[in-house]
Amino acid sequence: MKRVLVTGSGGFIGRGTLAPLAERGYEVVRNTANLLAPGEAERVIEEVRPTHLLHLAWNAKPGEFWTTPENLDWVAASLRLLRAFTTAGGERAVFAGTCAEYAWENETHCVEGVTPLVPATLYGTAKHALHTLVERAGVSAAWGRVFFVFGPHEHPARLASSVASALVRGEPAETGPGTQIRDFLYSEDLAAAFVALLDCDAVGAVNLASGDPRPIRELVELLGEASGRPELLRIGARPANPAEPAVLTAAVDRLRDEVGWAPPRTLEQRLADTVAWWRQATV
Amino acid sequence: MKRVLVTGSGGFIGRGTLAPLAERGYEVVRNTANLLAPGEAERVIEEVRPTHLLHLAWNAKPGEFWTTPENLDWVAASLRLLRAFTTAGGERAVFAGTCAEYAWENETHCVEGVTPLVPATLYGTAKHALHTLVERAGVSAAWGRVFFVFGPHEHPARLASSVASALVRGEPAETGPGTQIRDFLYSEDLAAAFVALLDCDAVGAVNLASGDPRPIRELVELLGEASGRPELLRIGARPANPAEPAVLTAAVDRLRDEVGWAPPRTLEQRLADTVAWWRQATV
Repeated sequence: MKRVLVTGSGGFIGRGTLAPLAERGYEVVRNTANLLAPGEAERVIEEVRPTHLLHLAWNAKPGEFWTTPENLDWVAASLRLLRAFTTAGGERAVFAGTCAEYAWENETHCVEGVTPLVPATLYGTAKHALHTLVERAGVSAAWGRVFFVFGPHEHPARLASSVASALVRGEPAETGPGTQIRDFLYSEDLAAAFVALLDCDAVGAVNLASGDPRPIRELVELLGEASGRPELLRIGARPANPAEPAVLTAAVDRLRDEVGWAPPRTLEQRLADTVAWWRQATV
Repeated sequence: MKRVLVTGSGGFIGRGTLAPLAERGYEVVRNTANLLAPGEAERVIEEVRPTHLLHLAWNAKPGEFWTTPENLDWVAASLRLLRAFTTAGGERAVFAGTCAEYAWENETHCVEGVTPLVPATLYGTAKHALHTLVERAGVSAAWGRVFFVFGPHEHPARLASSVASALVRGEPAETGPGTQIRDFLYSEDLAAAFVALLDCDAVGAVNLASGDPRPIRELVELLGEASGRPELLRIGARPANPAEPAVLTAAVDRLRDEVGWAPPRTLEQRLADTVAWWRQATV
C-alpha cells in the first residue's frame, strides 16, 4: 500500500497532483495541519503514517515570496516534517525546489549538478539550503526544480493569468517587451511531473520544465491568438526589467530519461486551455 | 542593558563564555530548555527577551557528530530560535560554524569568502546550510567558524585530552604519526573569541582560530614536555588516516582586524595549562 501525504494540496500546483496520484494507485492524504505551528509536522506524520511524502507547501505569494523571512520558517518546518517522516519509516519523499537556486547569469541554461548553485534571493537561498539537507536525510528523496508556470487558478497578478483574464474580459493587456526567453510549463503538467518524480527512483535535483523555451513575447502573442483578441495586446507598454536574465532555460534530460516524463501537450494547446479556463471562470 | 541568551553554556566551549560575557557587561541567561522539543525555542525567547544570542548548542559528540541526523534537527531548532529572537526585537546573534564547511583539499588554507564552501559531511552540510539562512535573517549576525580545539573538560576520546590524561596518570600515550598541520586553539580562548565576536559589529563568517598552525606531532610533543613525561609518548604507534588533509589552516585576518581579537597566550602555555588541569582533575 502506497499512502502519500501531500502538503500544499490546495495550491496552484498541488491541486493538480491529486488525480494523477490516485491514477497511480496512491492513497492520498491531504495535509490540513498548520505545519508552521510547533509540533504539528510531527503530529501529522504520526497520525497519517505515510509511505510517501509530496511536500509542496511554502510561501509562494506573488509580491512577497522572494523576500519574506517566513520562508526561513518553512525551511525549519520542512526539515521537521522530513525528519519525522524518515524516523517513522517513510520510504520516498519529493520536495519542490526552484530555478532560483541556480546562479543566474544573463544567459543561463540550468543543468542539474553542473550549473552553480548561488541563489541571489532569500527564497532561492532557503530552498537551496533545504535541498542540501534533504540529500543528507538518509531516505530516497528527489528535489523537483520548478521554472515558470501558468495555468488555471494562477494568482491574478502573474503574467499569463493577467493577460488571459484581461483578454477574455475584452480589456487591453499591457506587458513589457517580453524579449526574455523562459521555460514555461502548464500547472497541471507540472503537477503530473511531480507525481511522476515521486513514483520513480530518481534521487537528487531534477528540473521540472518543458524543455521548449520561448520568448515571453511569444507566450503573450499566443494568448492573444487563443483568445481571438490579439488587437488588445499592448506589448511593450510596460518597461523591461534590466535585472532579469535574458535567457533562463532548463535542461530536461533527467526528467525525460530518468523520470520518463515529458509534457503531453504543446505550449500552444496549454495556452488555449488556459484561455478557456479564464473564459469559464470569468462568465 | 545587554542581555544575552547562551545555549550550550555547559559545554566544552560554552562554559568558558560566561566570565568574559560578564566582564563585558552582559547580563547572562543560560538556556535550560530542550531546544529540540517543539515550541521550546519560541518559549525561551519569549521568557528571556534577550538583546543578544550566543548559540553554541549542537550535537558535537565525538564518534557521532559527523554523521548523526540529529544535526538536521539542530538546523531546524536553530532556525526557529533565530526567527523567534529576530521577531522579538533581538539585536545581535552569533552562531558556531565549523572549518568542515570548507572544501577540504589535501592542503587547504581556509579564507572566509574565498575558499569554496563544499562540506563533505552531514555535520558540515548542516552548519553551512544554517549559515546561508542566518545571513538572510535580517539581523546583525556573525558566524564563528571553529577549527581544532583543546583544553579542560575536553571529551576524553579526543587527541589532546587522551594524551594529557594518559601522561599525568603515568601511562603510555599512543598516537598516529601526526604529520598533519592544523590550527589549534585553547577552549577558553575560543570562548573568549566568541564573546569578542558577539561584542562587535562584524557580520558574516569569521574564522575563530589561533593563526599559529602546527603539526599535530608537535602538539603531542609539547604535551610530553609540559607533563615531564615525554618518554611515555608513542608517536606513530597508531596508523595515519590517509583521508585526512595534510594541511588545514585558518586565515585570521578578520578575527584580528575586524573583531580585534588574538590569543592571549602561546600554544606552549595553553598546553601546559591543559596538563595542569588534567593533573588536578586526575588526583
